Amino acid sequence: MDHNVNVVYRSLNFSALDSVEDDRLPGRRSWERDADGPVREAGGPGRESPSPENRKGRESRRGRRTADAAEAEGRLQGAHGSGVQSWMSARRQRPTQDNGPSAGEGDDMVDPWNVSTSSAKGVDYDKLIVRFGSSKIDQELVDRIERVTGQKPHHFLRRGIFFSHRDMHQILDAFENKKSFYLYTGRGPSSEAMHVGHLIPFIFTKWLQDVFDVPLVIQLTDDEKYLWKDLSLEECHRYAVENAKDIVACGFDVNKTFIFSDLDYMGMSPGFYRNVVKVQKHVTFNQVKGIFGFTDSDCIGKISFPAIQAAPSFSTSFPQIFSGRKDVQCLIPCAIDQDPYFRMTRDVAPRIGFPKPALLHSTFFPALQGAQTKMSASDPNSSIFLTDTAKQIKNKINKHAFSGGKDTVEEHRRCGGNTDVDVSFMYLTFFLEDDEQLEKIRQDYSSGALLTGELKKRLIETLQPMITAHQEKRKQVTEETVRQFMTPRRLDFDF
Amino acid sequence: MDHNVNVVYRSLNFSALDSVEDDRLPGRRSWERDADGPVREAGGPGRESPSPENRKGRESRRGRRTADAAEAEGRLQGAHGSGVQSWMSARRQRPTQDNGPSAGEGDDMVDPWNVSTSSAKGVDYDKLIVRFGSSKIDQELVDRIERVTGQKPHHFLRRGIFFSHRDMHQILDAFENKKSFYLYTGRGPSSEAMHVGHLIPFIFTKWLQDVFDVPLVIQLTDDEKYLWKDLSLEECHRYAVENAKDIVACGFDVNKTFIFSDLDYMGMSPGFYRNVVKVQKHVTFNQVKGIFGFTDSDCIGKISFPAIQAAPSFSTSFPQIFSGRKDVQCLIPCAIDQDPYFRMTRDVAPRIGFPKPALLHSTFFPALQGAQTKMSASDPNSSIFLTDTAKQIKNKINKHAFSGGKDTVEEHRRCGGNTDVDVSFMYLTFFLEDDEQLEKIRQDYSSGALLTGELKKRLIETLQPMITAHQEKRKQVTEETVRQFMTPRRLDFDF
Repeated sequence: MDHNVNVVYRSLNFSALDSVEDDRLPGRRSWERDADGPVREAGGPGRESPSPENRKGRESRRGRRTADAAEAEGRLQGAHGSGVQSWMSARRQRPTQDNGPSAGEGDDMVDPWNVSTSSAKGVDYDKLIVRFGSSKIDQELVDRIERVTGQKPHHFLRRGIFFSHRDMHQILDAFENKKSFYLYTGRGPSSEAMHVGHLIPFIFTKWLQDVFDVPLVIQLTDDEKYLWKDLSLEECHRYAVENAKDIVACGFDVNKTFIFSDLDYMGMSPGFYRNVVKVQKHVTFNQVKGIFGFTDSDCIGKISFPAIQAAPSFSTSFPQIFSGRKDVQCLIPCAIDQDPYFRMTRDVAPRIGFPKPALLHSTFFPALQGAQTKMSASDPNSSIFLTDTAKQIKNKINKHAFSGGKDTVEEHRRCGGNTDVDVSFMYLTFFLEDDEQLEKIRQDYSSGALLTGELKKRLIETLQPMITAHQEKRKQVTEETVRQFMTPRRLDFDF
Repeated sequence: MDHNVNVVYRSLNFSALDSVEDDRLPGRRSWERDADGPVREAGGPGRESPSPENRKGRESRRGRRTADAAEAEGRLQGAHGSGVQSWMSARRQRPTQDNGPSAGEGDDMVDPWNVSTSSAKGVDYDKLIVRFGSSKIDQELVDRIERVTGQKPHHFLRRGIFFSHRDMHQILDAFENKKSFYLYTGRGPSSEAMHVGHLIPFIFTKWLQDVFDVPLVIQLTDDEKYLWKDLSLEECHRYAVENAKDIVACGFDVNKTFIFSDLDYMGMSPGFYRNVVKVQKHVTFNQVKGIFGFTDSDCIGKISFPAIQAAPSFSTSFPQIFSGRKDVQCLIPCAIDQDPYFRMTRDVAPRIGFPKPALLHSTFFPALQGAQTKMSASDPNSSIFLTDTAKQIKNKINKHAFSGGKDTVEEHRRCGGNTDVDVSFMYLTFFLEDDEQLEKIRQDYSSGALLTGELKKRLIETLQPMITAHQEKRKQVTEETVRQFMTPRRLDFDF
């Protein structure tokens, strides 16, 4: 998988941002093309475009202006499909091309419910940055984060697992000027079972909270799961609470973190619904049709749902935390396929008087069977689940993890394995924190010194204690603890 | 206006229900025609259709079965237009035909945002009953209400101002078996100014509450006004509270009545949003397009709003009142143009496990300038406002109330006036309670014994003390009183 090369080696030619040809989908639907009436609003002065200050800051960096232009274009870019799933992407990788109209020739397709690529190497994340109009997390930004926080950047940043952003420099500018922000991430609780891929945004968000010391809100979209799945409200809500336990087990500080179920919080907050309605007034069906591919046969709940994922991007959705302040900017760490929600949110924000949320985008977490196969919640062998025993972990990796090794030991010793497609190696880039060890594994596997069984053993030895530790921590999460996290309240911050 | 003849004389030939030709709109859009996927659900066993018991009860009454069939047809009947306004209809009468596609030849058009007729006599309410598939409030039902409650029926019932219903016999059957129900009505607070027409549903609902002694919930759709109008959330919410004062002044019992702003209550109730999402899952864009005429250019807030007007039809939206019981049936008194919301609600109800709400429909309240002109909030002369002084009332009626009298006193004495088109007489049918006096006025005016000035004087003398009394009562409504009415709480009923 291409991005895992980049993961270890930041070898990209950034001038690609300037020279890339226009590779937008020929068959894409424009956010505005068919629209009349209300859609004109979208063209008003509040339109998604960099502020002068913002642009100035960006111009100092190579390729930024092109990325700005591409963001504007990316926003206009339609998506296709008949369903949408939010906050779930870390586990999704759909390389097949039979889901709705495919992207233009050579293009990957990435949206909240569909990730596909015609390339055997997987999604081309650099092209995605250009298409979505986001900005690359380059070495300069990683260095700046280190400078501002005084902390070594998380290996997800060092290895490009979080590879793209919007307005992160603005967040850092403000932070340097003692202006705080808050973090917002989430999860769609479609089942009790979470796997290691689901942890990626939470592990990274925990690190961000630690180094920036800012409030964090975590949305559990149980309403969305009810709308999309054949589940009852009660089931979705129960999954939300169960998933919250796994999230709490990631080590979040209860004094700095608010976890909420949409179904509960909508009925407990004087601010959340008001922001939902504000967003709903400023987004047309034409727009969500263009962004999310909704059709006339979709239920009205799906059609209006994007506003519910948008609303927590605004601090007035949490008056208990921000004392009604509307100017606290939001930073959203999420997988890149969630970006359409937040492109929409960023377009609406200035029109309803709120700052645009900034974003940090991650790559996708591959299935055990390979970066091009789809992880399936109904197939327990497609990933390592947080409830797996040490033995299950060992068996799954040994039996199912797609190998980049050669057919025979002799051939492997002679030619070496291919870390670009080896899932065990990919997983290690996510979970083995030591850069030197990882690099040595890469070299040894590539040279043939390290056999596939040995590589798998390294992964097993990395994951087993990690999962065991998670299970221990989760056991300590009582109903009372979850209740505390999920109670709307003031956090330990003065706003 | 035709219905005002019927108001006084219940002279209709009910066999019209059997013999009327199929006059559905040729260009109508079907609720289901273009739909696929989720819409198929609508055809399931839970579909809006009379229960066997219900049908049996109905079959004993002439014409009922035809009305049943027509309800099913009426539900399929599309509506047209580019906007929708809820809870506002009592003041709307739009005879022009330039709002969207017109009804079939000879058909009136009545939906939440558009009331038009090609007939100089105004809306034909009997045809409407057939088209909507509701049932006529006939003398038998009026008599039964009197028998069950032991009270003389309200003059709105006696005069056919509330002229149509759905499942009212079911409500009475249950009531006779000591099974309670609750009342639900509402208002869209688009301005501070309310006029006498706005009082119609509240005056009647107050009477229903008095004679049945049941809980009442009153929805103020400030969210809807924000979505449809160029108003801020704060303005809409303020109008809601101001309108609540006028509603409270109608004399509702604070121990039996809960008034709520959507913007507030959505953020205070553990049940309301859950029911909104349930409805939203079971209604497609195709359906709301067919029912309300939404287009792709409408904002997603409008598209999903019908679920918010539907949800209070289910008792679990008010757990504080009904202790979580989901089987308490709802009776909705409203103007007939609100029926599309509740046809939709009745279709969804069995599919989400709730009883269908019953309905009582009123005719429209005419503008001063005549039953065929439109009342306009921006034209203070189009109606009598609740803030008008005695002098303003006198002047407005004398200057603006459309007269059915003749051009000269001599001709009037000789030929008599026409009460069918005389607005002063129409207003008296709404507000003069004494049947004998009203009948004498009708006879005297028709014969020419009563001159237009004298008729207007009777109306002035009826309205002036009524409005003054309302103003006095409203003055006594303190912020604290409104706060009490608008606080989610248990009412004086055991559920």
